[in-house]
Amino acid sequence: MKKLKIGIIGVGRLGYEHACNIANRVPGSELVAIADANFDRAKQVAEELGVTAVYNDPKALCADPNVEAVAIITNTASHVEMIKIAMDAGKHVFCEKPLADTVEKCKEAEAIIAAHPELTFMLGFMRRYDHSYQVAKKKMENGDIGDVILVRCYSQDPISIIEGTLEYAPRSGGQFIDMSIHDFDLIRWLTGSEVKELWATGGCYEFKQYKDWDDGDNVSGLMKMENDAMAFFFAGRAAAHGSHVETEIVGTRGTLRIASVPTDSLVEVMSQHGVCRECYQDFITRWHDAYITEIEEFCDCVATGRKATPGVIDGTQSTKIAFRCKESFLTDKKLTLE
Amino acid sequence: MKKLKIGIIGVGRLGYEHACNIANRVPGSELVAIADANFDRAKQVAEELGVTAVYNDPKALCADPNVEAVAIITNTASHVEMIKIAMDAGKHVFCEKPLADTVEKCKEAEAIIAAHPELTFMLGFMRRYDHSYQVAKKKMENGDIGDVILVRCYSQDPISIIEGTLEYAPRSGGQFIDMSIHDFDLIRWLTGSEVKELWATGGCYEFKQYKDWDDGDNVSGLMKMENDAMAFFFAGRAAAHGSHVETEIVGTRGTLRIASVPTDSLVEVMSQHGVCRECYQDFITRWHDAYITEIEEFCDCVATGRKATPGVIDGTQSTKIAFRCKESFLTDKKLTLE
Amino acid sequence: MKKLKIGIIGVGRLGYEHACNIANRVPGSELVAIADANFDRAKQVAEELGVTAVYNDPKALCADPNVEAVAIITNTASHVEMIKIAMDAGKHVFCEKPLADTVEKCKEAEAIIAAHPELTFMLGFMRRYDHSYQVAKKKMENGDIGDVILVRCYSQDPISIIEGTLEYAPRSGGQFIDMSIHDFDLIRWLTGSEVKELWATGGCYEFKQYKDWDDGDNVSGLMKMENDAMAFFFAGRAAAHGSHVETEIVGTRGTLRIASVPTDSLVEVMSQHGVCRECYQDFITRWHDAYITEIEEFCDCVATGRKATPGVIDGTQSTKIAFRCKESFLTDKKLTLE
Amino acid sequence: MKKLKIGIIGVGRLGYEHACNIANRVPGSELVAIADANFDRAKQVAEELGVTAVYNDPKALCADPNVEAVAIITNTASHVEMIKIAMDAGKHVFCEKPLADTVEKCKEAEAIIAAHPELTFMLGFMRRYDHSYQVAKKKMENGDIGDVILVRCYSQDPISIIEGTLEYAPRSGGQFIDMSIHDFDLIRWLTGSEVKELWATGGCYEFKQYKDWDDGDNVSGLMKMENDAMAFFFAGRAAAHGSHVETEIVGTRGTLRIASVPTDSLVEVMSQHGVCRECYQDFITRWHDAYITEIEEFCDCVATGRKATPGVIDGTQSTKIAFRCKESFLTDKKLTLE
Repeated sequence: MKKLKIGIIGVGRLGYEHACNIANRVPGSELVAIADANFDRAKQVAEELGVTAVYNDPKALCADPNVEAVAIITNTASHVEMIKIAMDAGKHVFCEKPLADTVEKCKEAEAIIAAHPELTFMLGFMRRYDHSYQVAKKKMENGDIGDVILVRCYSQDPISIIEGTLEYAPRSGGQFIDMSIHDFDLIRWLTGSEVKELWATGGCYEFKQYKDWDDGDNVSGLMKMENDAMAFFFAGRAAAHGSHVETEIVGTRGTLRIASVPTDSLVEVMSQHGVCRECYQDFITRWHDAYITEIEEFCDCVATGRKATPGVIDGTQSTKIAFRCKESFLTDKKLTLE
Repeated sequence: MKKLKIGIIGVGRLGYEHACNIANRVPGSELVAIADANFDRAKQVAEELGVTAVYNDPKALCADPNVEAVAIITNTASHVEMIKIAMDAGKHVFCEKPLADTVEKCKEAEAIIAAHPELTFMLGFMRRYDHSYQVAKKKMENGDIGDVILVRCYSQDPISIIEGTLEYAPRSGGQFIDMSIHDFDLIRWLTGSEVKELWATGGCYEFKQYKDWDDGDNVSGLMKMENDAMAFFFAGRAAAHGSHVETEIVGTRGTLRIASVPTDSLVEVMSQHGVCRECYQDFITRWHDAYITEIEEFCDCVATGRKATPGVIDGTQSTKIAFRCKESFLTDKKLTLE
Repeated sequence: MKKLKIGIIGVGRLGYEHACNIANRVPGSELVAIADANFDRAKQVAEELGVTAVYNDPKALCADPNVEAVAIITNTASHVEMIKIAMDAGKHVFCEKPLADTVEKCKEAEAIIAAHPELTFMLGFMRRYDHSYQVAKKKMENGDIGDVILVRCYSQDPISIIEGTLEYAPRSGGQFIDMSIHDFDLIRWLTGSEVKELWATGGCYEFKQYKDWDDGDNVSGLMKMENDAMAFFFAGRAAAHGSHVETEIVGTRGTLRIASVPTDSLVEVMSQHGVCRECYQDFITRWHDAYITEIEEFCDCVATGRKATPGVIDGTQSTKIAFRCKESFLTDKKLTLE
Repeated sequence: MKKLKIGIIGVGRLGYEHACNIANRVPGSELVAIADANFDRAKQVAEELGVTAVYNDPKALCADPNVEAVAIITNTASHVEMIKIAMDAGKHVFCEKPLADTVEKCKEAEAIIAAHPELTFMLGFMRRYDHSYQVAKKKMENGDIGDVILVRCYSQDPISIIEGTLEYAPRSGGQFIDMSIHDFDLIRWLTGSEVKELWATGGCYEFKQYKDWDDGDNVSGLMKMENDAMAFFFAGRAAAHGSHVETEIVGTRGTLRIASVPTDSLVEVMSQHGVCRECYQDFITRWHDAYITEIEEFCDCVATGRKATPGVIDGTQSTKIAFRCKESFLTDKKLTLE
């Protein structure tokens, strides 16, 4: 019944979601400290969640002896620095994806984590902890679909939030680093293999401004894995119907398709439009339970000493793929991963 | 390869559909004669379909020695008279549903048909010949769902054709005789049993004019069959989404549901309304293939001497149920069938 | 940020679920006391959830000054007595469904609650708080489907738990009181009206032992509401595919169907069986989130003084309907509610 | 009402399907002559369908003055020779896909057809005439989904017919020429553009013998079109669930998905496997109606002088893409089309 005492660094939109979950939705955790560069925001969330230790300096939070583990939900560029501060202070670390904004920093993170084998590190690719993905993975491990032939991944943001999407775009790192990296992690996880070669392409089909950021509003790519499995990914910024993350695994004995209709509502609406299922309109709603489950898993790994996944290597590899895809997209060349 | 030479009586909307099918879509049939009280209509359809024998008097058509079988697609009140003329002239008969507008006439039809055991008679409850219903029935016969517990039947016309529905309503015989009779036939066919008791109810939820015709715009009923199976039916005149005929058979070992999304299009439309399936907007499109298949079956029964189903008894029984439901609806009493 | 201090009476299977939620999943609540006639069970759950106040006498729990509200998850027969004890001790009450095992006791509950207008009372018809039902209700309130014509309710337990179902059956109160009562509440809630007349029927289609308990393994009923809406319900004990609670609301302008495929997994399995969706296998999984949401609502009602629903009247009315359905089932008569 | 008099060359499995349709299912056509290298087969089909003119030499059929149009359903290698014979004899031509087994022969076909501008030529990419594809195309032309971003095409044969698949494989031309060519035609038709560059890959995931034929049992490819639209295709030989041809068009304003559950049955089966939809098990059943509709269109084009599509250029272009994909697959290089 001991609860893991977690301090959180960063309580922006997603950080706030994590803070609420840690405080109120995860049985094995307790939220004991909050840090945010925006100190007012930190204090406001702390008050709402009944947290008394509030910091604007992450170092101070990491020095707090009451904190056993740190959840890092800051901007990507700062992740590795935060990991170092926290681990050097002897704290377990849960870090949001992506691991870092360069492959070099990923390597640094590997070194930091390797230097603290006694501490748990977990990376927040939450999709792995979504109920449906867990169901699918279990079926695969059970041999239900034989060997993997093809993994197909879609990640689409909805048009309903396009203003926010466009505002965030220039500093997002681009479609591959920001969005498709989730799919790169899924592809590696589901095929159990590393990318061998890839070709990424795309364009600006509706929002020409992405051109200015060396990015596309819609991109896709084909990959061949070391074990010969194929993978196709597609990412878009403005789907008419909703936040649509769909994954399909075609195997030699069967196929699993996850979220072809992306909704948590069991309501069918029969109207002049036909028989309709309304879809998720934002990713936090879509992954609400997965965000909880991954923190439960993190707490359990800390408690039992079991190794947490995804780990730092998953961060490095997915980042590598993302950068390589971007290079392929910009040069229009088929590339090997290394 | 011999084709059955069929003459058709009545080429209104549904008669025209049958005429086209007999002429051009059913391998085993040939359309050789057309009769319609509206002689101009008869001539026009005959010209379009390359038929040379055209009549305005059904008796003349039945006297035509080139005609081997007669398809009767006239108004319900005249069905039994037509059956008599055709059979007395030695013709096989395919007759549209319902068999008659009174139970007494149904009994007359039974006598006529009994007097001509050498001739094939088939009643046009085409739903039985729809591919999906055939698939379901085969599974039931195969024991896939065990014994029948409940049959649920929906029959809804779409709002998109409400003008025609309202115009036709006063002379339709009412919801039970005109529409639900299809479901009464399905219920008997799927349970393999006769109705023991029933309660029908309903009202005028949107179109108050049905009150004037001792009818409802939406009606439903619960039935218990002789073999204890339960049946629920619902019929409506103005579904927003389309022409919706749905049937479910709950069995002790499994359940079959037919047409929960009533469409022949495999297109999913992803739009601001969600993920939508557009539905049938008229019954002739819905049952197009079933109309063909039932005539194929009719031709095959004539050719092989096999007994055709649904037969005259199915007409009598469904008509009885329909009238009894109407009585229950009007008196608000639970009734036995007899 | 003040958390409502709740003591729970009864930590059997469903009580345990509530206890865990109150302790760890509901932001606004805190579990501060546990009572169970099985004291060992109470102590074990208390230890697991970090609760220090443990009782085997509900009166003692209600006398605990630290307890602000009581959750009653005992057997149905004891509900009203527990409500009295708790309310007389000045505690807010959340009580599991059904309200009582007789209509007379329901009336007693009404009196007790009326005597404590300062206290919140809420009845645990959790289906109303399921996300999909909330979505549907909101659409109805928004006028999306016009006026209600028909509510159709299915409640089926899965064959996979049939042993437990059969074991519990003799003391369950029977299908109408135990299971269909949920649907009676939904029907009242969705139509906004009271039952006027009804006919319930059914039988023992697979499990003949229900006969001995004056019950059926599958039952159904048709109802007419005071406002003319129709309602059909069906309940079964052994669906091959899973725990299937489905509700449909047919309106004059559109239709809403909830859970025609009862699953929270977005996985489609493509195998030799076709394209399959696997279904819920137990009701606690099905309603997990609804159990949390209703307690959130309860806490919010206590905090704000807002009146909680469903309330005691909903308990009385659904119980009345259940007993009247049972009478109709046993006598095979159509009955009015009163 | 004049029917087009069609002679058919080749009455193997698919030829027989066409022969039956021309004879009995297409209102505007009449089957007047049959030729097949297997003369016994030709005679047998002729007798069944009541055709009196039977040939084993295609030239003789083409010389038959009663024949107005010729349907060519022979092996791919002979298509162009047959087209020449038929057109030189003044007959309209319907030719099955693919147009030819080399790009050079396609060019020859172009010349032959160009030399007979008074004659109708139509290529049998029947998918374009499937009801669902027609619905989708109409929506696209209506602007419902904006501009095309991505077309995704799946073509999978079912494991249930794997013996036939393996037997036919060595002389099929391989996955790209035999199967994916349908998707190449769809991609061009749906994007309204030509392929600019492509990368095709795949392997032998289950059936290693494909290696011997320089082929894969599962292949896929990514393409970029001249108009910047992206296209992904996947083809497999042994899907557990059935014959699965699925196409999706992602547009800037909406998405259309065709046949994500590939079935013409509206039956949902609820069993221990969940809620299942059973799928097509062979392509002739899947495309039965499309085979009829394309011949109707052919007849109408002949009757009205309207230009038929797909035309010879569609044959050349799809063949070019297929060979280029095969080259990419064998060399593992990204290639431009030309």
